[in-house]
Amino acid sequence: MIYKLDSFQDLIEAFKMFPGIGTKTAERMALFLMKSPPDRTRLFSKSVQNARGKIHFCSVCYLFTEEDPCQVCQDSQRDQGLICVIEEAKDAFVLERCGFRGLYHVLMGKISPLDGVGPEDLKVAHLVERIKKIRPREVILATGMDVEGEATALYLSKLLGEEEVKLTRIAYGIPVGMGLDYADELTLAKALEARRSL
Amino acid sequence: MIYKLDSFQDLIEAFKMFPGIGTKTAERMALFLMKSPPDRTRLFSKSVQNARGKIHFCSVCYLFTEEDPCQVCQDSQRDQGLICVIEEAKDAFVLERCGFRGLYHVLMGKISPLDGVGPEDLKVAHLVERIKKIRPREVILATGMDVEGEATALYLSKLLGEEEVKLTRIAYGIPVGMGLDYADELTLAKALEARRSL
Repeated sequence: MIYKLDSFQDLIEAFKMFPGIGTKTAERMALFLMKSPPDRTRLFSKSVQNARGKIHFCSVCYLFTEEDPCQVCQDSQRDQGLICVIEEAKDAFVLERCGFRGLYHVLMGKISPLDGVGPEDLKVAHLVERIKKIRPREVILATGMDVEGEATALYLSKLLGEEEVKLTRIAYGIPVGMGLDYADELTLAKALEARRSL
Repeated sequence: MIYKLDSFQDLIEAFKMFPGIGTKTAERMALFLMKSPPDRTRLFSKSVQNARGKIHFCSVCYLFTEEDPCQVCQDSQRDQGLICVIEEAKDAFVLERCGFRGLYHVLMGKISPLDGVGPEDLKVAHLVERIKKIRPREVILATGMDVEGEATALYLSKLLGEEEVKLTRIAYGIPVGMGLDYADELTLAKALEARRSL
C-alpha cells in the first residue's frame, strides 16, 4: 500500500490556492504548521476567521472596514474635496503612511484585457457617480505604473475628462535613495522630462 | 485619524509567521482571502484545523499519520529489513512516488550548527535504538545533498558504523533530462567518479 495522507494533502492544496504560492512553498508552509505548537495553529485559524467575519468593503469607497461607511468616509477632519483612486484596498495603508489625508476610491482591480478584466468589472461606474454627487476639487489617479495601471489611468482620464474636475496622476521618477546608475532609461527619461526648478 | 484595520493587520502577521513568506506575499495572500467567497475561507480554515487535529507523528518512525503506528509501520507487505532515513516527513511522499516500499525514519531536521541544531535535537537516538531492535538489512541515508544534509549523513555513518548494518547513501549525479552543459563541475566530477559499466 502506498503511503499517503489526505488531510495533509488537503492542507497543501489549501495553501496552493493563494496567488504566487506553488507546490514547494505550500509544502513548506504545511510542514511548518504541522510542526508548530497547537496554540499557533489556533491563533492562525482565528486570525483568518476573525478577519473574514468582521471585515467587508465600505459601500461608499470600497476600503476594507469593520463598520459601514468606513472610518475614512466618516471622518469630517479629512479633506472631502480630494479623492485618491487606487487599485486595491491595501494600497490605502501605504498612502496613509505617506501622510495622505483625503478620501479614497478603490477600483478593486485594474483594466487587464489579457486577464479578461474590463472597466465594467471594476468600481468605475461607482466612481463616476460619486464624483457627480460630491463634486470633489481634485481626483488623484494613483493606479500602478505598470502597463495595466497606466491603461486604467488613461481610461479614467478620458472618462472623467467630461466631468468638471481636476484630474492628476502620481509622478514618474527615480525612487528616493536610488543612484542614477540603477535607474532604467525610460524612468530616467521621464524623470528628466518632469524636472523642476529649484 | 489615520486609517488602519487591526483585524486585517493580524491576518497579514498570521501569514508572515510562515517561513519564506515576506510582507508583500503575506499582503497578497490576505487580500486574496478577503476577496474570496466566504465558502473558500471556511474550507481553508477547515483544512488547517482538520490537518492539525488529526495528524500527529508516528511514535516509531515519525512520519505524519492519523493512526499510531502509521500505515507504513503497520504494513507487513513492506520490506521490513530496509530503513530509509529522511530529513522531513514530507520527503516520504516523493520516495513513495519513486516506488520505494521499505520503512522510513524521519530525523525531523538536519544537523545545522549555524541554526543551533545538533544531533540531540533530531530523532537520532531513536534511530540507533530502532536499528539495535529490528536489525535491518540495510539503512539508506537519504538526507539532502546540501552541506547540512551531507554533514548529517556523515555523522550518521560514523555513529551507525558501530552497528553491524549495511549503510548506503543515495547517489550524486546528473539529473535525468539535464544536458551536461547545465551541470556544475562538482556534480559532473561526482557523476564521472560514480560511472558504471554497461
